[in-house]
Amino acid sequence: MKKLINDPSSVLADALRGVELAHPDTVRVDHENRLVVRADAPRPGKVGLVSGGGSGHEPMHGGFVGRGMLDAAACGEVFTSPTPDQVFAATVAVNGGAGVLHIVKNYTGDVMNFEMAAELAGAEGIEVASVLTADDVAVTDSLYTAGRRGVGVTVLVEKIAGAAAEEGYDLAKLAELAQRVADNGRSMGLALTSCTVPAAGRPTFELADDEIELGIGIHGEPGRERQPLAPVKELASRLVTPILSDFDFTGAPVIVLCNGMGGTPLIELYGLFAETCDLLSAAGVQVARSLVGNYITSLEMAGASITLLRADDEMLRLWDAPVTTSGMTW
Amino acid sequence: MKKLINDPSSVLADALRGVELAHPDTVRVDHENRLVVRADAPRPGKVGLVSGGGSGHEPMHGGFVGRGMLDAAACGEVFTSPTPDQVFAATVAVNGGAGVLHIVKNYTGDVMNFEMAAELAGAEGIEVASVLTADDVAVTDSLYTAGRRGVGVTVLVEKIAGAAAEEGYDLAKLAELAQRVADNGRSMGLALTSCTVPAAGRPTFELADDEIELGIGIHGEPGRERQPLAPVKELASRLVTPILSDFDFTGAPVIVLCNGMGGTPLIELYGLFAETCDLLSAAGVQVARSLVGNYITSLEMAGASITLLRADDEMLRLWDAPVTTSGMTW
Repeated sequence: MKKLINDPSSVLADALRGVELAHPDTVRVDHENRLVVRADAPRPGKVGLVSGGGSGHEPMHGGFVGRGMLDAAACGEVFTSPTPDQVFAATVAVNGGAGVLHIVKNYTGDVMNFEMAAELAGAEGIEVASVLTADDVAVTDSLYTAGRRGVGVTVLVEKIAGAAAEEGYDLAKLAELAQRVADNGRSMGLALTSCTVPAAGRPTFELADDEIELGIGIHGEPGRERQPLAPVKELASRLVTPILSDFDFTGAPVIVLCNGMGGTPLIELYGLFAETCDLLSAAGVQVARSLVGNYITSLEMAGASITLLRADDEMLRLWDAPVTTSGMTW
Repeated sequence: MKKLINDPSSVLADALRGVELAHPDTVRVDHENRLVVRADAPRPGKVGLVSGGGSGHEPMHGGFVGRGMLDAAACGEVFTSPTPDQVFAATVAVNGGAGVLHIVKNYTGDVMNFEMAAELAGAEGIEVASVLTADDVAVTDSLYTAGRRGVGVTVLVEKIAGAAAEEGYDLAKLAELAQRVADNGRSMGLALTSCTVPAAGRPTFELADDEIELGIGIHGEPGRERQPLAPVKELASRLVTPILSDFDFTGAPVIVLCNGMGGTPLIELYGLFAETCDLLSAAGVQVARSLVGNYITSLEMAGASITLLRADDEMLRLWDAPVTTSGMTW
């Protein structure tokens, strides 16, 4: 295993120290609870937004804490759910009296631990609502999931709900919007290589030199099938076709996320994005907004995912609103 | 070779198509000349900023075109200098009557081709000044270079000079500032893995499982020596110590760039940044600003580089000025 780390057991703590040093104007770090918290949280009267999950997907979620996006991220160990105590501490830290929204990716551990945290918060008089993302069309049920996995649309939910919270949406309205975004998004990914979890010390899986894993999960969990490598034009089709078969993206503005899994260079992601746009155009899908880069990653995995969101005017307006985080700024 | 590409010969053209589709508000693309040009260029009365070089280092340079940074980037093939004609076309495209500044990394081909382009522009009555970056302390002379290689400080020059041009600096004042930034910066990098140039089809070099290349160049050209892999605390020291030995960074505010080479996850870069801050603090160096992420990359290479800039109040003010590009925004 070749990594820039001190020890597998200190990877997260070391990184959080770096985050604190790099972004003091935007966030503070609660080292005891492994939280990245917006520097000015809690904001009185504003609904607090909390997400979190296993680490190793950076910039998600810690890199999305800041003005116009999350108020806190609870950071589990690499590919490991944060504990209920962590999520509870995050909820308390961002509670400004208007309630807290939990944004949860659909993995069994995450769902369970966020639910327990919500109960703990409720017992303290903090109102919590939850939104669940489950946008991965690759598989139903998987290694860590009952139902579909939550992947790329989580980034879009965090951006859009973050802007809405900034605008003053109340908890009920915010939860409805966030779930509507989650429900109108679909994703599909592929891997060219595995990643190596520091604590495991070896690649999660092996692929032959001419092989890809289609429908890969963000923890390297199996997808639909192994297939031969092909030109990116063909690979784009293998991602876009199942998404378009699953949900109707015509007749509405669509937000496209062309996401790298960590080890894929930008020069390749832009090529994939161009092919994706061609396919969407041919299918009568109108690309209204787009985002190309590494947003929800799997450590150093080479590969990419495509997420489409069927948007509306409200979502586009909130998408365009200012955001200031280390992982996304405009 | 596992890459998301159609064909090695189309990688750049495919990517530029994606850049055009992704960022229509910020840039336009001249496909014939392989240029990324600021959407509103030329701006009358503003000095135009042109950089460029081989592709494969994204987001540098095309991702740094936009408000407060570059006016155009001339994109060579992967790890190949742009031609004089490309650089000349970029110069013409951004000439608003106040002259054009060329920001050139010190590689033999780049230096020669930017010089020829400046002559061509001069013959057309366009005043051109040039700044050369040569900040890599790893080696003097190398595979592609007479003298030191230009690496990470180029990103800082482009940001600071870009802000100054936006403020209305004239060409002479801008060139003096840009060269002063270049001359006050030092860098050092290391690689954990090689990258694979698409046209070559196989890794540029091989490293053993427990080996790093210290002082790596951004094209995979050899550094100082191969060394055993070590904890990131020790690797940070192998980067920072030669930088501090080469130049005095005490007694002034310092800007730190902790840069990933492409295949290294953010979670590792933040760990490296924390160790770097510890070393700088122990050496009496005051970190005034910092940037952690993938800014000057080598395709999918795993590794990182550290760049320090001895700044002054003028540079800090310009560093903090707004910037709107796909690769850097605040």
